[in-house]
Amino acid sequence: MSTKGLDYESLNENVKKTRYAVRGELYLRALELQMQGKEIILTNVGNPQALGQKPITFARQEMPLSPFLMDDPYVGVLFPADAISRAKHYLSMTSGGLGSYSDVGGLPGIRKEVAEFIVKRDGYPSDPELIYLTDGASKGVMQILQTIIRGQSDGILVPIPQHPLYSAAISLYGGSLVPYYLEETANWGLSIENLLQSVAEAHSKGINVRAMVIINPGNPTGQCLSESCLKEILQFCNQENLVLLGDEVYQQNVYQEEHPFISAKKVLMDMGPPISKQVQLVSFHSVSKGFWGECGQRGGYFEMTNIPPQTVDEIYKIASISLSNGCGQIILGIMVNPPKPADISYERFLRESNSILGSLRKRAQITTNGFNSCRNMVCNFTEGAMYSFPQTRLPPKACLKLLEATGICTVPGSGFGQKDGVFHLRTTILPAEEDMHAIMASFKKFNDQFMEQYEDAKAITGCQD
Amino acid sequence: MSTKGLDYESLNENVKKTRYAVRGELYLRALELQMQGKEIILTNVGNPQALGQKPITFARQEMPLSPFLMDDPYVGVLFPADAISRAKHYLSMTSGGLGSYSDVGGLPGIRKEVAEFIVKRDGYPSDPELIYLTDGASKGVMQILQTIIRGQSDGILVPIPQHPLYSAAISLYGGSLVPYYLEETANWGLSIENLLQSVAEAHSKGINVRAMVIINPGNPTGQCLSESCLKEILQFCNQENLVLLGDEVYQQNVYQEEHPFISAKKVLMDMGPPISKQVQLVSFHSVSKGFWGECGQRGGYFEMTNIPPQTVDEIYKIASISLSNGCGQIILGIMVNPPKPADISYERFLRESNSILGSLRKRAQITTNGFNSCRNMVCNFTEGAMYSFPQTRLPPKACLKLLEATGICTVPGSGFGQKDGVFHLRTTILPAEEDMHAIMASFKKFNDQFMEQYEDAKAITGCQD
Repeated sequence: MSTKGLDYESLNENVKKTRYAVRGELYLRALELQMQGKEIILTNVGNPQALGQKPITFARQEMPLSPFLMDDPYVGVLFPADAISRAKHYLSMTSGGLGSYSDVGGLPGIRKEVAEFIVKRDGYPSDPELIYLTDGASKGVMQILQTIIRGQSDGILVPIPQHPLYSAAISLYGGSLVPYYLEETANWGLSIENLLQSVAEAHSKGINVRAMVIINPGNPTGQCLSESCLKEILQFCNQENLVLLGDEVYQQNVYQEEHPFISAKKVLMDMGPPISKQVQLVSFHSVSKGFWGECGQRGGYFEMTNIPPQTVDEIYKIASISLSNGCGQIILGIMVNPPKPADISYERFLRESNSILGSLRKRAQITTNGFNSCRNMVCNFTEGAMYSFPQTRLPPKACLKLLEATGICTVPGSGFGQKDGVFHLRTTILPAEEDMHAIMASFKKFNDQFMEQYEDAKAITGCQD
Repeated sequence: MSTKGLDYESLNENVKKTRYAVRGELYLRALELQMQGKEIILTNVGNPQALGQKPITFARQEMPLSPFLMDDPYVGVLFPADAISRAKHYLSMTSGGLGSYSDVGGLPGIRKEVAEFIVKRDGYPSDPELIYLTDGASKGVMQILQTIIRGQSDGILVPIPQHPLYSAAISLYGGSLVPYYLEETANWGLSIENLLQSVAEAHSKGINVRAMVIINPGNPTGQCLSESCLKEILQFCNQENLVLLGDEVYQQNVYQEEHPFISAKKVLMDMGPPISKQVQLVSFHSVSKGFWGECGQRGGYFEMTNIPPQTVDEIYKIASISLSNGCGQIILGIMVNPPKPADISYERFLRESNSILGSLRKRAQITTNGFNSCRNMVCNFTEGAMYSFPQTRLPPKACLKLLEATGICTVPGSGFGQKDGVFHLRTTILPAEEDMHAIMASFKKFNDQFMEQYEDAKAITGCQD
C-alpha cells in the first residue's frame, strides 16, 4: 500500500530533521505534572509574564483601541488622557483599526517611529522603508534565513551555544549550520581565529558560508559584545562577504556597566566608508524581552542595512503573503516611543520599568551566585539577556529528575549546543525575586545530593542521551 | 567580485519564483495614488474593516483583558458584565495573560471551545489536541504544505482560479502546483474527470500528486460546494491517497439557500468507515472573514482528521519554534463561542452580525448584476465568500487604467489563474453598501467606454502582459 501525504514516512525530511528543545519532551512532562497539580517553575523559556511579571500599564492601556471606547464619554474614568490620545494616534494610522490587514511591512506610522528610535539610539539615519514589522523577532529571522538558504551547501555561522531558533530554522530550510564556539573560560567571548577556522572547515566539506549570526546580549550565554569585538566581526563579515544577522532582542536587558549594549548598526556606521556601505546587515528586535516582556503579543521588527533594492522587493513579496498582527505592531510602537517626561503616564511608566530592570539585575546575581555555590558547577555572570547557562556535571537525563523532584523545568545544554564532553543546562532568571533564593536552594540540594550519589564521573556521563 | 548572501543573484530561487499578485504592483500604485490624495477603493483584498465594516462590539470588549482593568471598580462603566466575566474566563486560562507565550498549538481552553464549535456544527466528535491555533488560516496552510512538500516532484492539486496563497506557498517550498480547472459555465463547478486528467498529466511529467486543495466557499469564484460534490472529492482523495486541505474560511459567508455550507469533515464522517477513517483531512478556519472580519488580529485554526500521531508530533515541533499571537486566539475563542441568548450582549451581537451578513448578501447581488450589465462581461453569482470574479475583455493592463481613472483597485485574473484566452478580474464585495451602486456605475462607465474604443479583439488581447 502506498503511503499518504501526511504519513510520517513521506514527510519533508527537513521538517523531520528539525530540532527545537526549548518546548520539547521535558516541557511536555512539566505541563503534565502541572495538570496533576504539582507546582512547576517554568524556567525553560524567557516568558516573563508567565512567571508573574506585570505588564507595563501604558502598553495595555493601548490595547482596547476600539472605536466604541474612543467614542464613550466615560472612557476617561478608566484611561489616562495620554493613553487615549495615543490610541487615537494609532487609530488614525489605519483605515480600519486593528481589524484590518496592515500594510505589508507593517503600519507606516509605526515603521517611522521605529526608525526614529533607531536614530536616537545610534545617531545615524534609519529608513522606515527598510524596517519590516514582524510577529516577534523569530518570524523575521526565519524569513531572512529562508531568503538566503538555497540548499545544503549554503552555510550559516551560528554561535555555539545558540538559541535553537537558528539551528531549527536552518534545518527547516535545508541549509547547513556552521558552528563557531564561544569560549566559556573567556566569559563566552569569540575569537576571529575560531571564526576563520569554522569557515575553512566548512569549505573543506563543500559548504559555502553565506551569513553569520550574532546574539547580543547572548542567549543562552548572557555576554554583552564589546565595541572592539563587534568591529572585528564586521571586518570579518566584510572580508568573507557574509550577511550579518544581529539578534539584538535583549538590548534592554543589561545588568552591568562595563559592557553596555551597542548595536551592530552603530559600530558599522562608526567604521565609516567603504565598509559601512558594504556589509549587509539585518538587525532584529522584539517586544518580548526588555522590561516589556510582551511575548504573547508577537511584535518585532527587522532593519535592513546595505541590502540591494531588488532583494528588498523579494522580501516585500514574501512578507505580503501573510501579514503580521496588529496588536503586536501597536505594542512595538509603544516600546519604541514610550511615555515622555511631560506625559501624565511617565512617572508610572518609569516606576514600573525601573522596578522590573532593577529586579532582573538582582535575580541575575542571585542565579549566578547560586549555581557557583553548587558542587561541580561553574557559571559565568549573566551580563545581559534573561538566562543562566552553568556548566554542570548533571547529565541531561537528570533534568527530568530535577523536574520531578523540585518542579524546576530547565532545558539541557544539548538543546543549545556545547563542546564535546562538557554539559550545561539553561534556566531563565525570571522566577519572582522573592522566590529566587528558595528555588536556587532547592536546585542546590538536588544537585549536591545527586553529585554525592554519582560522584564517579563514569556513572554520570553514562547517563548521556 | 563574489556576490554577497543577500545580493539578488544569490537568493533562494524558490523565493524569487514565488508570485503573489494580491498585494503586488497594482496595489503599490494604489497606495501611491492614495498618498497623493486620490480617493481609492481597495477591492483587491478581503479586508472588511478597512472598508468601513465596524468590528463586532463583543469581540473588542475582550481586547483590554488587562489585570489593571479587571481590578478597576469602574470597569462596569465601560464594559457589560458578560464581557467582563468572559475576559476573566480567558485570563484564567493563562498564567500570564496576553503577555505570555501561549502553549504550542494555542491556549488549551480555546482549543477546547473550538472543538465544541466543530461538534455543534458537524455532529461528530472533535479532539482539541488535533486543533492548532494559528496566526490566521494562511500560516496554518503554509505549515501543512511545508510538512508535505519534499521537492519539485511533489504535486499539490489546486483549483484554478485559486487564492494565490496556494501557488505562492507551493513555489516557496519548492513543490509543483498541479492545476485542476473549475468550469465557469457550470457555476465554477469541478468534475472528477478533470481531476483524474490533472493527476494523469502530472504523472506523465514525473510529478507525484500528494494533496488536494479545495476552497469552499470559493475564493475568488464564490461557489459553495454541494454535499454530493464533496463526497466525490473525498472518494477521489481516498482512491488517490491524497491529503485533502479544506480551506473553509468563508463558511459563514453564504448568500443563498440552495447551497448551504457543509464542511468536508462532516461529509467524510457521514460516509462512515472505512473511508471516514482513511482520508487524511486538514480543515482551516479564520477570524478574518464571516461577519467578524478581524483580518488584522491574525487568528485562525486548523483541525487534523486521520493524521498519524507521529506526524502530529512533527507538526507540534515546527509550531513550537514560533507561537501564534494571543489577541488572535482570544478573538477566535469569541468567534467559536459568541454571546448566547441569555447573555446581556446577545441582542447587540445578533443585531450587528445580522446587519453585516444581510448587507453582504445585498452587495453580492449588486456586484453580480453590475458586472453582468457591462459590455462584454459575464459573471457568476457570488454564492458565498467575499469576491466577484467576472470574465472580462479588459486586458490586465487595463486594471491599472481603471485604478487611475476611477480609484477602483482590483486584481487581474492572471493573479489567480484562468484558462488560456479568457480574462477576468477579481473585486471584493466589501465597499460600503451605500457606495456600491456608484462604484459599479463608475466601473461600468470605464468598461463600456474602453470596449467602445478597443472593440477590436486583437487590440485588446495585444495588451496582455
